[in-house]
Amino acid sequence: MGPGETDLELIRSRIREVPDFPKKGIAFKDITPLLQDGHAFRKAVDAMAAPFEGRDLETICSAEARGFIFGAALSYRLGIGFAPVRKPGKLPPQTHTVSYSLEYGTDSLEIRQDALAKGEKVLLVDDVLATGGTMEACCRLVETAGGVVVACLFLIELAALGGREKLPGREIVSVLTYD
Amino acid sequence: MGPGETDLELIRSRIREVPDFPKKGIAFKDITPLLQDGHAFRKAVDAMAAPFEGRDLETICSAEARGFIFGAALSYRLGIGFAPVRKPGKLPPQTHTVSYSLEYGTDSLEIRQDALAKGEKVLLVDDVLATGGTMEACCRLVETAGGVVVACLFLIELAALGGREKLPGREIVSVLTYD
Repeated sequence: MGPGETDLELIRSRIREVPDFPKKGIAFKDITPLLQDGHAFRKAVDAMAAPFEGRDLETICSAEARGFIFGAALSYRLGIGFAPVRKPGKLPPQTHTVSYSLEYGTDSLEIRQDALAKGEKVLLVDDVLATGGTMEACCRLVETAGGVVVACLFLIELAALGGREKLPGREIVSVLTYD
Repeated sequence: MGPGETDLELIRSRIREVPDFPKKGIAFKDITPLLQDGHAFRKAVDAMAAPFEGRDLETICSAEARGFIFGAALSYRLGIGFAPVRKPGKLPPQTHTVSYSLEYGTDSLEIRQDALAKGEKVLLVDDVLATGGTMEACCRLVETAGGVVVACLFLIELAALGGREKLPGREIVSVLTYD
């Protein structure tokens, strides 16, 4: 069963908008009030898990650092493995690496080469879908490592930033959408 | 009830030693095989939770990034809030900051100023107790924010590095100890 309206209202009420962070013109969605409320945090994790109960999934992948919070809690909740995606040099060798574009320059992400078996079914998890750049890189990384991306799951989707367009053909699930 | 011997053997069997990482002479404890085994990861989180069932705790604090994995799963498991400790500039203002010494130079950690109520009872969580520098800084940060440190909880303790001596008077719990 999915989350009720009151659960979604509770979750939404615990997300605070911070104007001009991390820079001018950006309205940051601060999830720390949600995390600090143990009941609301559980409801948020349960709401993320609900669409995937009984689905054929083997592993959750999330990128550091905020992605680890929901990814690890969902891994515990669903009883499936967790494969962390990290910045370069943080995971012991051997790793696969992908690069992706930022507003200025590029960044890279890594996964352990033995993180996934061939064809392993992966649920990608992050807290926020913004422009989609990080998630698109995570999809490529999972596929480079031999895995299959089943879906991309977010707590929050910032629809105006068009992240879905960066992820064509992917199943995208988000608990809360903001215009 | 605490974890049985077979659970501890399972958990220990999923921790891989990586020689000379991140630099020569260090035998890195790689937890990725544990995370990738959903059953073993659950057992590890349950083993960390067991000594704290029914204890009077209000919030878990963990430092990014690996600390988020066990901290968030334990927060879900115990049904109490989670207050992330982050590198400078990652949390929206206002924050408290503490500095701590590294082998060369210093580093800083931050927590939201509204993360903890006065006297809030905090369980600090990390994956590994090594030299204790990060955890000692987290204790100071929690106390600066008005919280009370109930205990410091680790999956792994590297006893030879003397981390306990950096944390005098603290209750320290670790699931697995290595000489």
